[in-house]
Amino acid sequence: MTKTVVITNGTIVTMNDRDEVFNPGVVVIEGAKIVEVGALSNGGTESLAEKYPNAQFVDASGCVVIPGLVNAHTHAAMTIFRGLADDLPLREWLEQHIFPAEKKLTEEWVFWGTVLACAEMIASGTTTFCDMYLFEHKVAEAVDKTGMRAVVGEVLYDFPSPHYGELENGFAFTKRFIEDWMGHERIKISVDPHAVYTCSPELLLRSFAISEHYDVPFVIHLAETEDEVQETMRRYGRTPVAHLANLGVLSGRVIADHCVWLSEEDRAIIAEKKVKVVHNPESNLKLASGIAPVADLLRRGVTVSLGTDGCASNNDLDMLSEMDTCAKIHKGVLRDPTVLPAKEVLRMATVYGARTLGLDDKIGKLEPGMLADIVILDFNKPHLTPCYDPISHIVYSARGSDVRDVMVHGQWLMRNREFTTIDMGEVKARVKEIARRVRSD
Amino acid sequence: MTKTVVITNGTIVTMNDRDEVFNPGVVVIEGAKIVEVGALSNGGTESLAEKYPNAQFVDASGCVVIPGLVNAHTHAAMTIFRGLADDLPLREWLEQHIFPAEKKLTEEWVFWGTVLACAEMIASGTTTFCDMYLFEHKVAEAVDKTGMRAVVGEVLYDFPSPHYGELENGFAFTKRFIEDWMGHERIKISVDPHAVYTCSPELLLRSFAISEHYDVPFVIHLAETEDEVQETMRRYGRTPVAHLANLGVLSGRVIADHCVWLSEEDRAIIAEKKVKVVHNPESNLKLASGIAPVADLLRRGVTVSLGTDGCASNNDLDMLSEMDTCAKIHKGVLRDPTVLPAKEVLRMATVYGARTLGLDDKIGKLEPGMLADIVILDFNKPHLTPCYDPISHIVYSARGSDVRDVMVHGQWLMRNREFTTIDMGEVKARVKEIARRVRSD
Repeated sequence: MTKTVVITNGTIVTMNDRDEVFNPGVVVIEGAKIVEVGALSNGGTESLAEKYPNAQFVDASGCVVIPGLVNAHTHAAMTIFRGLADDLPLREWLEQHIFPAEKKLTEEWVFWGTVLACAEMIASGTTTFCDMYLFEHKVAEAVDKTGMRAVVGEVLYDFPSPHYGELENGFAFTKRFIEDWMGHERIKISVDPHAVYTCSPELLLRSFAISEHYDVPFVIHLAETEDEVQETMRRYGRTPVAHLANLGVLSGRVIADHCVWLSEEDRAIIAEKKVKVVHNPESNLKLASGIAPVADLLRRGVTVSLGTDGCASNNDLDMLSEMDTCAKIHKGVLRDPTVLPAKEVLRMATVYGARTLGLDDKIGKLEPGMLADIVILDFNKPHLTPCYDPISHIVYSARGSDVRDVMVHGQWLMRNREFTTIDMGEVKARVKEIARRVRSD
Repeated sequence: MTKTVVITNGTIVTMNDRDEVFNPGVVVIEGAKIVEVGALSNGGTESLAEKYPNAQFVDASGCVVIPGLVNAHTHAAMTIFRGLADDLPLREWLEQHIFPAEKKLTEEWVFWGTVLACAEMIASGTTTFCDMYLFEHKVAEAVDKTGMRAVVGEVLYDFPSPHYGELENGFAFTKRFIEDWMGHERIKISVDPHAVYTCSPELLLRSFAISEHYDVPFVIHLAETEDEVQETMRRYGRTPVAHLANLGVLSGRVIADHCVWLSEEDRAIIAEKKVKVVHNPESNLKLASGIAPVADLLRRGVTVSLGTDGCASNNDLDMLSEMDTCAKIHKGVLRDPTVLPAKEVLRMATVYGARTLGLDDKIGKLEPGMLADIVILDFNKPHLTPCYDPISHIVYSARGSDVRDVMVHGQWLMRNREFTTIDMGEVKARVKEIARRVRSD
């Protein structure tokens, strides 16, 4: 028999097309799907108990119920390098700290780093993430084990990989990887060329062909730094965006991470080709890359979602704090307090995130027929008191630690802040040992 | 008999002049003061138990022990307006939302709003704050009751106040207020002219004279917006900073909040006069005021501390997230990943905060002879795993909710996240009722 869950008495922020909020409201889940969302009727919980006699009832009094958050760009396993080195010039940080550590990378490190990342993401309200890194089969395995939802892709570039060696093996791995996970309910594989400055035109063309053949996303870092734009101009006589457009590898399946440095023409191309943009404000600030023109992209109708990037440059995977930063930074820089209002930022982390990953028919809203990826935030906290507007609080005041319960695909992954699929004791012990080896010579 | 507390087994981040970190370390408190800080010796906790047979032993295994954070600028009672209105043009926000709500302000609202603020600050690791608002005697009362440390001042301006009416009463109130609390162990009164654009030269001169007479801080909002600078130029032919310098009211006792818009000359004046600057990055971003030239001020030797500003423009009082924003925003805007490194930002929130408030001989460091304002952060969390550098984690990864225990003046205000001086049930009920009245016509 299908399991039924009824969440009652909370404020339901649906993020549906009518922006409905029900307070108090109810969400009913059957199996993996949401079957009912609405106001708690006069009969209240009693009439629901009659309607769903065998359901699990979850009281969300004083809580706000939202669609699970979508972290649209990260390198999950980099949790193992969290805080390894900070506040350094980019080249020194990469060449003296991150690259030497990554040289030691193993399947095992990626697996445990990803499980740790999943724990952190679940505990801060993220239910879906998009991952680009090495040994991605271990990422998929960790996601499967923890019960999260993800789009994962093995990074491809012109030089030998610590995982698959020569590029040819990378293509072979990617195709097999896509086929292996085809049809999985929560895991989807993408094709992930690293960036314009690390991938030849041939690599980009072959990657795009694979993504088209299998109808999966094509994920790339794009126009992240001014250096990248200058180098691409020198090598190809075009901006990174124009270079991809010229190669014919821009379309609605392209997920472009960062997009900090965009010319007027680049923005028009992105809008026209329906490229999805992932904004990573905290990482872009911390690495001093700059500030992406998000308000302008949104005005042009571009789908812009939100990501944390990896832990080495953030240094956390908390989408609640990322929303806060996103909502504030553009106001300050554009000197306009009306840009990126709270509701639009919450859309970036839910509806637009789902659309970015090609999952907008499945997740991102609380609506009958959608998959049950649901987060319950406990608003019984000093910093969430009083509450005039739950959406303002979600974006500007809530923290990861306010997440009480998390459901993905109808399964509880956290109840009352206890993980149901992750043994944190084991994860901490494994990662502590990995960190010891990261630091050793 | 004086109470002794021994905190052992944690990582002690002293913030002393030698930047010492002891891991594992020990802090011993007798009465209101720290008497011992150092590495846990070979004998460990056992030899300490012999040395301090009647002490309370607090195990801080897996925790990081830091000086209590200093929130150097806020309007605590504005918690009652948290999230009342956001994302609006400044004038509309003030005139249609904040001012009408403030018209209804009562002593009772200020008292309960401040108790709520104290709860939020304690729970996120702040032990001292500097407050400017109305009905400040109720703020002092709330601080006294909750056990926090604060510098508080009644706001003075050219128009009648909802509290004291005519300005003359404001001066009389301020003098009496200073005298009433003179010699209090945790509470100090300041003189708080609101800003250059709301205070006549005479008001500023009289305020400064009072602050000199009583040897207390002079607190003012300064150069917060571009509009303020333009208006001051029109009225006085000088920038706000130059205007104050010309009046002769700049000195080391001046606490200047915001300082977003500073000319080259303004910066030189601030450095020369030893004016203390309080940076409020999140509020400045959210209200679209701009980004203060903090890296440059620090380079010039100016004491720059950190504040959250009021809840209506932040929308929280979390100094851990304020540090994170501060450390990132300047890197992104200046395109330099080395500015505002984590340790310097932690100094802003501790040592420099203490210096700003004239309390640097009492708080801001964990050192024998200093008052015992101490915060224990629980690092046993996914988002704080692994830990290569505790200071990186404090600034870039920790959240308010990681605060486990808080001591002010030798008294525990929070143990294992339970308040010892605040009844949150009562506070919530009171503030809920106030919020209902804020919204009613």
